Amino acid sequence: MEFPIRQLTILGSTGSIGENALRVVSEHPDRLRVLGLSAFVNAERLIRQAQEFHPAYVWIGDTSAYKQVEQALHSTDIRVLTGRDGLLEAASDNRADLVLNAIVGSAGMEPTLAAIRQGIDVALSNKESLVMAGAVINQALSEHEVNLYPVDSEHSAIWQCLQGEQLTQVQRLLLTASGGPFRETPLEQFQEITVEEALDHPNWSMGRKITIDSATMMNKGLEVIEAHWLFHIPPADIEVVIHPQSIIHSLVEFHDGSVKAQLGVPDMKGPIQYALLYPDHVAPQWERLDLIEMGALTFEAPDMEKFPALRLAYRALEQGGSLPAVMNVANELAVQAFLDGEISFPAITDTVESVMEAHRIIREPNLEDIRETERWTKGIFETKLVT
Amino acid sequence: MEFPIRQLTILGSTGSIGENALRVVSEHPDRLRVLGLSAFVNAERLIRQAQEFHPAYVWIGDTSAYKQVEQALHSTDIRVLTGRDGLLEAASDNRADLVLNAIVGSAGMEPTLAAIRQGIDVALSNKESLVMAGAVINQALSEHEVNLYPVDSEHSAIWQCLQGEQLTQVQRLLLTASGGPFRETPLEQFQEITVEEALDHPNWSMGRKITIDSATMMNKGLEVIEAHWLFHIPPADIEVVIHPQSIIHSLVEFHDGSVKAQLGVPDMKGPIQYALLYPDHVAPQWERLDLIEMGALTFEAPDMEKFPALRLAYRALEQGGSLPAVMNVANELAVQAFLDGEISFPAITDTVESVMEAHRIIREPNLEDIRETERWTKGIFETKLVT
Repeated sequence: MEFPIRQLTILGSTGSIGENALRVVSEHPDRLRVLGLSAFVNAERLIRQAQEFHPAYVWIGDTSAYKQVEQALHSTDIRVLTGRDGLLEAASDNRADLVLNAIVGSAGMEPTLAAIRQGIDVALSNKESLVMAGAVINQALSEHEVNLYPVDSEHSAIWQCLQGEQLTQVQRLLLTASGGPFRETPLEQFQEITVEEALDHPNWSMGRKITIDSATMMNKGLEVIEAHWLFHIPPADIEVVIHPQSIIHSLVEFHDGSVKAQLGVPDMKGPIQYALLYPDHVAPQWERLDLIEMGALTFEAPDMEKFPALRLAYRALEQGGSLPAVMNVANELAVQAFLDGEISFPAITDTVESVMEAHRIIREPNLEDIRETERWTKGIFETKLVT
Repeated sequence: MEFPIRQLTILGSTGSIGENALRVVSEHPDRLRVLGLSAFVNAERLIRQAQEFHPAYVWIGDTSAYKQVEQALHSTDIRVLTGRDGLLEAASDNRADLVLNAIVGSAGMEPTLAAIRQGIDVALSNKESLVMAGAVINQALSEHEVNLYPVDSEHSAIWQCLQGEQLTQVQRLLLTASGGPFRETPLEQFQEITVEEALDHPNWSMGRKITIDSATMMNKGLEVIEAHWLFHIPPADIEVVIHPQSIIHSLVEFHDGSVKAQLGVPDMKGPIQYALLYPDHVAPQWERLDLIEMGALTFEAPDMEKFPALRLAYRALEQGGSLPAVMNVANELAVQAFLDGEISFPAITDTVESVMEAHRIIREPNLEDIRETERWTKGIFETKLVT
C-alpha cells in the first residue's frame, strides 16, 4: 500500500517523548519526514538529531545553547531559531501535516494553539495545554477543523477503544494508574521521601517533571482533566483505578456494560507511533505483550488521603474556569521546589492546594485571562509555599 | 433517536441463549419484534413464549410436543410448524431482518445456510454451523451479501475490538477460556469425573452440551475454528489463554503490539444484545463490571495434556476439509454418551480422536459432502467408542 508522507514538527524533541518519536520516524522513512525540531536547552542532542534527520529548521530556547547550535549547523541549510516568536513560528509552519507537542509544562500551551490556528493537526503529549486552556483549544479545533491526537498512553488507549464507536454511548472512562513508587508506602513516611526515591518510577521511563507528578499522582489528576477535554465526558464519569502492572492502559465502559480496554507493554513508542501513523497499527511490534508471563493484572481503588492531588484535580475540573490553570502552574513550581530540595514531598500538593484556595476563579477564561492567571500564580506562589 | 424495528426469528428459543434473547427483546420493544420462534422439545416454554411475544409462527421438533403446542395455540393466529422442511421454512422467511440461530449442535447448520441464502442476516450462537461448513457458509455470505454476527462472548469480544479497525493489521487473536471446572483437577482424577461435576461450570450458566464442551475444553477448540472462519485469521495466529475469571472475553493484538480487549461480567445478555442491536451499546447495563472488586485478572497457558480436545481442534482446522465436521459430530455423540453414563469423561476426547483417525478427509467439501460426512461419522461412531 502507498501512503502519503507526513511532514512532522516535533516540539520538545530532546526529551523522552521526542527521542522516542524520532525512533518511530526512523522506522517509517516511507511515512514520516521531519520538518522541524525544538529543544529548550539540550544543544548537543538537538545538533545530533538535526544532523540525522535534516529538518528545515530547529528551535532552541536557551541563549548560550543557541550559539552552540548555530555554530554547529552553520554549514548546513538548517535554519536555527530561538525566542518565543521563533517557537510559535516553528509550531505554526503549515508545511507540517502534524505537530507533535512534547514540550514539558505550561510553556507548551501557546505552541499548541499556534499550530491549531494554522490548521495543523496536533499530536499532544503536552497535557498541560488542555489542563490550562481546554475550552479555548476545543473552540480553536472546531473553528479550524483540526484534529488533536492524544499521545499519553492512557488517552491513546481510550482513543483506540473509541474507534468505530459513538461517544454518546460511553458510560464512563476508566483511567488506569500504576500508583507510582509510593503506592505501598505508609502516609507517615511521606514526609521523608527523597528526590531520588520519587524519581524511581516502577514501570515507565519518563522525564523528571512527569515522574514526580506520577509519584504524587498529580499526573493522573492532569490526565482526568485532559480526558474530559479530549473526549467530552463529564468529570463524574471519569474514574481512576490503580493497576500496578501498567499493562491495561485505560478502559471505556459503554451504556450496555461492555468494556473495552487497550493493553500493551509500558513503552511510549506504541502510543507515539499510533498518533503519528493514525489510524494504522503497523509493524514493527516494539515489544509483544505476554499475558501468561504476566500472570496477573491487579486493581485497587486510589487512596485519596495519601494522594490528595487527585482530589485537587477533580475539584479544579468541577469548579472549572481558571482554576485548573492555577493548579497546573502551582504544581510545576512546587515540583521544581521539591526537585531543588526546598520543600518536602507532601508539601508539593499542600502548596498547590493553598495556592488554589487563594485564587478567585475567572469564568470562561480566554487566552489572555489564562496568561494573566499564570502570572498571578507565579506571583503569589512564594507566599503560599508550604515546606 | 429513531431506529427501524428489527423483525427477529429465534431458532432454539427455549434454550439458555433463546431465553436471554427474549429478555433483550422485552427490554427493547422499540427496536426488536419477534417474527418466529423454534424449539426442539420444550412445548410448555415455547407456548409461554408464543403467548408473550406473539410471533407469526413457532416451530417445534418433537412430534408429541407438536400436538401440545398446536392445541395450546389453536385459538390464536400463530402458525405451528414442525418437521425439517418447517424448520428451514422458518429460518428462511425473509420477513425477518435477522435470524438468531441458537440451535444446539450440528442440526443448526442447515438453518444457518437457509437464512443466508434468503439474504437474511444471521446472529450465530450455533458455532457448529461454522465448524462443520465454514467455507460453504462464507461463500454463501459473500454471494448473498449477508452479515454474520457472532453471539459467543469470545467472538463478540473480538468483533467489538475490531470495530473501526482493519483485519489486515491484526497480528493474532487471543481467545480467553475459563479453563472450566477441572482446570486444577489432576489428570489422574479425570477418569473418576462424574456428569454432575462436569455440569458445574464455575462462571457461565449455559446448556448441558456446551457445559460439557467447556469441561473438556472442546468448546474452546470449536471456538478457535469459529474464529478462523469469522475473522479470516490463520490457525497459527489464533491462541488460547486460560483466564479463570472470565472477565476479559477475548483480545486482539495488532501489528504494532497494541492489544485491544473486551471485558464484562460473564452474562450472555451482553453479547446477545450487541448482536441484536449492532452497532449500538445501549442501556440497560445488565450488570456493571467492578475491576476493583475483582482485584485480579489472571492468565495461564492451557494444558494440552489434560485437555487434548484443544489439540484435536487445531489439528482438525489445520488439516481442514471434512475433518472439523467429523470432530464436531463425533464430539456431539461422545458428549451424549458421557451424559448417558455410557463412557468416562476422558473417553469423550479419546473417542473423538479415534473417529478422526479413521476418517479419510474430503477436500473442499460442499454441503452434500458435509451431510455425507455427518452420516459416515454417525455410522462409524459406535465401533470407535472408547469407554
